[in-house]
Amino acid sequence: MALIVQKFGGTSVANCDRIKNVAKRVVKTAHANNKMVIVLSAMAGETNRFVELANQMQRIPNPREMDVLLSTGEQVTVALFAMAVKGEGKDCVSLLGNQVKIITDDTHTKARIKRIDVEKINHYLDSGCIVVIAGFQGVTERGDITTLGRGGSDTTAVALAAALNADQCDIFTDVEGVYTTDPNVCTKARKIDRISYDEMLELASLGAKVLDIRSVGLAKRYGVPVHVRSTFTETEGTWVVEEDKNMESMLVSGVTCNKQEARITISRVPDTPGIASRLFTPISDAGIVVDMIIQNTRTGNNITDMTFTVPRSDYERAMNIVEVVAHEIGAERVSGSNDIAKVSIVGVGMRNHAGIANTMFGVLAKEGINILMISTSEIKISCVIEEKYSELAVRTLHDAFGLDKTSQSVKQ
Amino acid sequence: MALIVQKFGGTSVANCDRIKNVAKRVVKTAHANNKMVIVLSAMAGETNRFVELANQMQRIPNPREMDVLLSTGEQVTVALFAMAVKGEGKDCVSLLGNQVKIITDDTHTKARIKRIDVEKINHYLDSGCIVVIAGFQGVTERGDITTLGRGGSDTTAVALAAALNADQCDIFTDVEGVYTTDPNVCTKARKIDRISYDEMLELASLGAKVLDIRSVGLAKRYGVPVHVRSTFTETEGTWVVEEDKNMESMLVSGVTCNKQEARITISRVPDTPGIASRLFTPISDAGIVVDMIIQNTRTGNNITDMTFTVPRSDYERAMNIVEVVAHEIGAERVSGSNDIAKVSIVGVGMRNHAGIANTMFGVLAKEGINILMISTSEIKISCVIEEKYSELAVRTLHDAFGLDKTSQSVKQ
Repeated sequence: MALIVQKFGGTSVANCDRIKNVAKRVVKTAHANNKMVIVLSAMAGETNRFVELANQMQRIPNPREMDVLLSTGEQVTVALFAMAVKGEGKDCVSLLGNQVKIITDDTHTKARIKRIDVEKINHYLDSGCIVVIAGFQGVTERGDITTLGRGGSDTTAVALAAALNADQCDIFTDVEGVYTTDPNVCTKARKIDRISYDEMLELASLGAKVLDIRSVGLAKRYGVPVHVRSTFTETEGTWVVEEDKNMESMLVSGVTCNKQEARITISRVPDTPGIASRLFTPISDAGIVVDMIIQNTRTGNNITDMTFTVPRSDYERAMNIVEVVAHEIGAERVSGSNDIAKVSIVGVGMRNHAGIANTMFGVLAKEGINILMISTSEIKISCVIEEKYSELAVRTLHDAFGLDKTSQSVKQ
Repeated sequence: MALIVQKFGGTSVANCDRIKNVAKRVVKTAHANNKMVIVLSAMAGETNRFVELANQMQRIPNPREMDVLLSTGEQVTVALFAMAVKGEGKDCVSLLGNQVKIITDDTHTKARIKRIDVEKINHYLDSGCIVVIAGFQGVTERGDITTLGRGGSDTTAVALAAALNADQCDIFTDVEGVYTTDPNVCTKARKIDRISYDEMLELASLGAKVLDIRSVGLAKRYGVPVHVRSTFTETEGTWVVEEDKNMESMLVSGVTCNKQEARITISRVPDTPGIASRLFTPISDAGIVVDMIIQNTRTGNNITDMTFTVPRSDYERAMNIVEVVAHEIGAERVSGSNDIAKVSIVGVGMRNHAGIANTMFGVLAKEGINILMISTSEIKISCVIEEKYSELAVRTLHDAFGLDKTSQSVKQ
């Protein structure tokens, strides 16, 4: 008998018919001699509706009360789902974050799970129930409702799988799995069968929306096998698992593209200690998250150029801050643009193969695409380019690294 | 400094603008040096919406899960209200049934409150917060969410007022108070300034919807002064309080009319012991609530007629059951009608005045209205009449007992 945690997202439970379909599917799996813990999101659209209501009440809605409001979304779906399962003749019980006890810190609207009490869940599982748990929500030590922020239901599912020592965690969504790149950009995009936690972390941090990055981190830490798959088909999806030999033979697993960033450059800054801190402290204080930072030292004259990227939505605010600081620290000029894109390749195979970066740069150059910034990690290379080239770059890189084939050979 | 509990019903919080208006009103009262505990219902219409969703999930929705679903309605309003109050610059915190700990039995969808823990509420009140509490909901000892059934938010409010030893409990609704009769039927209907708990109990049990009967019972038991008033005006409403001398000078306080019942008569039943039990046990087993029962013994021959009323919606079912039993017990005939009305007069003054019943019967007779059944209590007289006379009867009785005047004199 296996213990399986399954999470269904907002589109999977968007209306009564879909909830009933999910219930049927879960009951079928349960009848195949499995213990089942189900984690549900709110019906698609509910969270936005609540945010709109809250915004009418208070200019900046109080975070504690926001969590009381938002958590009702998942409460509705777990209750309806439990009824639907019972309607199928199988016993089922719903539990909220505070009933399980999913204890979090008190950072309302983006709380972190501290621990999960599995006693109640195991009690119901042992009595033959399917246990359905409200995703996205927890409770503080003092009993206040919290929510886990964007992608929180994924985190709930993986954390429960870890706490319950489950055999696997299925993340059901509206796509069939993790793809080598965005199928809307590149028709040759291929579903990946198996991917390592590290690669998935990079992909998630680069903007692949299929799985929340915190849940991937948790899965890696506790070695939870995660299966990302579609609610609407029976097809196998993508397994996110420990790295294995098979994976290393792939040089590159995926190509991503992020158009949500903007670039700011400060030219001819006197290169003295503390300059970076003076620049980035006020930006950080304004709640703006800086992604890439690149500093080039001009030879000889202690003058440097500094370039970094910020979310495009914060571009104007960041520019205003930077212009003030640039004046104070004696920089010559501030420039920037918000029509850039960050194209990245990710793959654990990079660790053991030289020349991947050169291939990437060469392929882009051959298409006449100028690289504005470069940033690398052990298993990732990102290049900032002009936005207008982004689709071309993705398709070219996808081809160059043979991602449409299950066995790769690099074209150079 | 007074401690005031205020309850606002579903129409009072039906949309964002109304919630903000209620918040403004509450903040104003708080600034007049009052500690405030606010109890809210779900937005009008939400409960029906949830019931429809649940009915799509399971033929008879599971009661435990129904409560999980229904309780989200109040959770939404308390969160939005707390934001609105904070938007007005006053501190406020929301608490759910399980956070306060409003402990109930485990009769899901119509639970009864066993006790209320006031520690958390007092903590927040002492720190200067307005405390807003989700009405209608509680939690069992083992942590399952319960709801209190129809009118449950009134019960929450009065129970909280009792537990907190509050100075008063304001029930805000969409009418201006308790009326001598239905203003839609009788234009001379007058708002009652003060009414006793016992009279209010009778009025509530006779179908006056302004205040839930359980909440009146609780208010009486704990001596909570209840003020029924309108959300939409500043006018004083009706105080429901201990009986006082002033009230006794009023012979009759109100006239009610209930058209939701049907009458069933079994004629010529052999009058042997156990007949009533044989008749009413199967009706009770079918979940049908019998209201009035009248038995006339025909002189001499041990034959009796039995007449009783049931909810009109159960009329057909009850007739089917009665016809079977009537045959078994050798009754001659079963007849019935569902076009009846029960007209009642209520008043603590009846206790000390003879002749009130005679006046009622005489007034009805003078209008040619035939009385089909009579039932009395210490402070109430009910007559079942043909439905077509109901408005006439109400207006005539209202006039006869001088209910349009604050000081009554009986016209005979």
